[in-house]
Amino acid sequence: MVTAKALRDIVGNDWVVTAKDQTAPYKVDSTPPPVMPKAADNVIVVKPATAEEVSAIMKLANREKTPVYVRGGGTGMAGGAIPTRDGIVLSMERFDKIEEIDTRNLMAVAQAGVTLGQLLAAADAKNMSFPPHPGDEGAQLGGLAVCNAGGARAVKFGVMRNYVKGLEVVLPTGEIVTMGGKLLKCNTGLPLLHLMVDSEGILGVVTKVTLRLYPRFAGTATMVISYDNRNDAINTVPAILQAGIIPLAIEFMDREIVDLTAKYLGMTWPAPKGKAYLIVILTGANEDEVYYQAEQISAVCQKFGAVDTLMAERREEQAAILKIRSEVQSAVSPNADSLDTAVPPGEIGPLMDAVDKIAAKYGVKIPAVGHAADGNIHHILVKDIGDRGLLDQIKGEVYAAAMSLGGTITAEHGIGKKGIHYLDLYMDERQKQIMRDIKKAFDPNNILNPGTAIVP
Amino acid sequence: MVTAKALRDIVGNDWVVTAKDQTAPYKVDSTPPPVMPKAADNVIVVKPATAEEVSAIMKLANREKTPVYVRGGGTGMAGGAIPTRDGIVLSMERFDKIEEIDTRNLMAVAQAGVTLGQLLAAADAKNMSFPPHPGDEGAQLGGLAVCNAGGARAVKFGVMRNYVKGLEVVLPTGEIVTMGGKLLKCNTGLPLLHLMVDSEGILGVVTKVTLRLYPRFAGTATMVISYDNRNDAINTVPAILQAGIIPLAIEFMDREIVDLTAKYLGMTWPAPKGKAYLIVILTGANEDEVYYQAEQISAVCQKFGAVDTLMAERREEQAAILKIRSEVQSAVSPNADSLDTAVPPGEIGPLMDAVDKIAAKYGVKIPAVGHAADGNIHHILVKDIGDRGLLDQIKGEVYAAAMSLGGTITAEHGIGKKGIHYLDLYMDERQKQIMRDIKKAFDPNNILNPGTAIVP
Repeated sequence: MVTAKALRDIVGNDWVVTAKDQTAPYKVDSTPPPVMPKAADNVIVVKPATAEEVSAIMKLANREKTPVYVRGGGTGMAGGAIPTRDGIVLSMERFDKIEEIDTRNLMAVAQAGVTLGQLLAAADAKNMSFPPHPGDEGAQLGGLAVCNAGGARAVKFGVMRNYVKGLEVVLPTGEIVTMGGKLLKCNTGLPLLHLMVDSEGILGVVTKVTLRLYPRFAGTATMVISYDNRNDAINTVPAILQAGIIPLAIEFMDREIVDLTAKYLGMTWPAPKGKAYLIVILTGANEDEVYYQAEQISAVCQKFGAVDTLMAERREEQAAILKIRSEVQSAVSPNADSLDTAVPPGEIGPLMDAVDKIAAKYGVKIPAVGHAADGNIHHILVKDIGDRGLLDQIKGEVYAAAMSLGGTITAEHGIGKKGIHYLDLYMDERQKQIMRDIKKAFDPNNILNPGTAIVP
Repeated sequence: MVTAKALRDIVGNDWVVTAKDQTAPYKVDSTPPPVMPKAADNVIVVKPATAEEVSAIMKLANREKTPVYVRGGGTGMAGGAIPTRDGIVLSMERFDKIEEIDTRNLMAVAQAGVTLGQLLAAADAKNMSFPPHPGDEGAQLGGLAVCNAGGARAVKFGVMRNYVKGLEVVLPTGEIVTMGGKLLKCNTGLPLLHLMVDSEGILGVVTKVTLRLYPRFAGTATMVISYDNRNDAINTVPAILQAGIIPLAIEFMDREIVDLTAKYLGMTWPAPKGKAYLIVILTGANEDEVYYQAEQISAVCQKFGAVDTLMAERREEQAAILKIRSEVQSAVSPNADSLDTAVPPGEIGPLMDAVDKIAAKYGVKIPAVGHAADGNIHHILVKDIGDRGLLDQIKGEVYAAAMSLGGTITAEHGIGKKGIHYLDLYMDERQKQIMRDIKKAFDPNNILNPGTAIVP
């Protein structure tokens, strides 16, 4: 096992932490506590500042066969960052420089520990934008990239995979390599860059990212559309897309969750009518374009039985709506688990009906929020489900319902450590073997984030 | 070596071809002849119709260690499909069924041998669209997917990677597996689907694809913007994007290529003025949106010195312009080679200036067409360059110029077999080793398309 002294020799005395009270925050992430993997006892936290230091740490860890767990913002919900074996937590917090907001090439180059919040602010200051918003703004760019983060604003321009154009990576064996660059097209050999995206940190330590930016869209608005009937809301979604309107986001929330979260925040939800809501975020080159889109969407929604439509244009009004949407997870916690299934986008209605039946069968509530246009719904398995010992049973039934509709068990949270024993539901043995062989090609000693994403 | 008889036992007598005159068309693709790899002599062409037949062929080929070359539409420009060793050409031509144009989920499911032309027509018939147009409409969907085809219409919605949502794949070892589905988000284990995209057919035989569709956009127009000075045209491109307008395509052509191609086709180029042109394809939810975009673009272009702006709205007018753009490769053939570098999108001007200097140094012409907003330029190395024995030298210098600007040697054509000995320019040894190990994980006997994409 690598010693603290050996790590201090690499990064200096100030950047190695061994005291239990100081390592404790590095042993948890944002996974619901009942399903959070248990961290190992003996963990050293090391905070390198350069790719060369990361390289030295990885080489040392290889020699000593010591597990290394990469730590970003700790915002993951699948336990991917938790050190489950004695070893090293490699925190990226000192990789905090935005190297360039490149308006000519519409790209950002930033160290991996820069947070989403920092990037958004830096882009905005240069009249640019980074459209996706995968939840917590404390998430770090390296983690967002390797976890292929999604979130609400993925309808128009896609998930992180569509933005990650270049990576600097320290391989598990210590080599510092670059993949891609400020390039919109690059078909040069096997796509290792796209294997890194959604590798959940098991194939290399990302130290720098190059991300595509967009200009700041001059027109923006947020609509809240109210329905008395959930299925009417859900059925509206494909019709909006079929009309040729592609919003930045189309979110679904039911009334119960809205009320709970508004109360938790001490805020008022602006739409008094209805029992189910769509939140639609629109962007366009100017206000006219956004108005036009909003009119079209209103017409579609009315056809599908919407009882009210509200359009917020002022920044604060929009922010208030989105605040309530984004704080759902906090409002419902502590919960037993938060699921992350995806189904084909038109199958969300059938999935929610199936989950209603499961809930009725067990006499529990299973509220839902989700990225409706992406087919990605988060079912919240409330605390009561855990308390009654129903968690595994109900989770298995929700997964089975999603799979039977052509879906998957995780859309954006990833397998992490939490989901590993569910991977069999989705994946055949031969593909799992290939994944293990790929892991071995990158990491022959299995020292980087062992036990994450694939069967170790 | 697998015998014709053994293959006939799998697919039936009618679907195995051994006569030299009948196998000849399967031994070439669309690579410029001077750089096309030489095919092997002893090639058997087999035409399976089901994934099960492909599986049986792969298992047999593994037993006998016989190379198998997958054949799609033969439209590749890097020699990827050419059987360079004695073995089997596995033609996908009988995988020609479109299973579903799913308007509810905005997805198409089709067998891998369906052509781009067939998909476009089927989508159109259901009021849907498939935006990308990577050149030849005879290209097959399986090939487009595994080669991550790009083309002109990638500015707004991206290259093939953004559309490929599900694959049915026969692995080199014979297992039939599925990856993804009608899913917009799927982070379930390592992203084997995204490793398949741009694997150039060395990791598996794609038998079925699930592709994202869009609605048919009601508004569409094609602009031709004329400049007296090439750099003015090129410098306009980032300014258009910075203005928040994202066209479907922004293409660059110089006058010489335009005149040559128009003459070759017996057509008239509609823009009489200027020496360099941008072709901009616009789409929008309606005509007003497209008009607005066109106005904005005109204003930007005038600021950058455009001498004329033409907007074509009628289908036939637009088709005539795009016909001239799309037939450039035919008009200039036979040429020595057609390059496919990409640089950061704002670096196209410097790249073209550098190539001008190379051309002047050797006293040759190196005309260019390209996907300007993608940073992807095709430099045409004319026949004369080959005749004078300058091909390798000039190609090396163009590649070096692209690399020095942060670029890559192939943006969309891929490495194929033509580019293998140039891969070193872009890639370090450790990454090449990982690629070889990944290949081995999928294909332990190296029988599928050996000698393609990575060092074998």
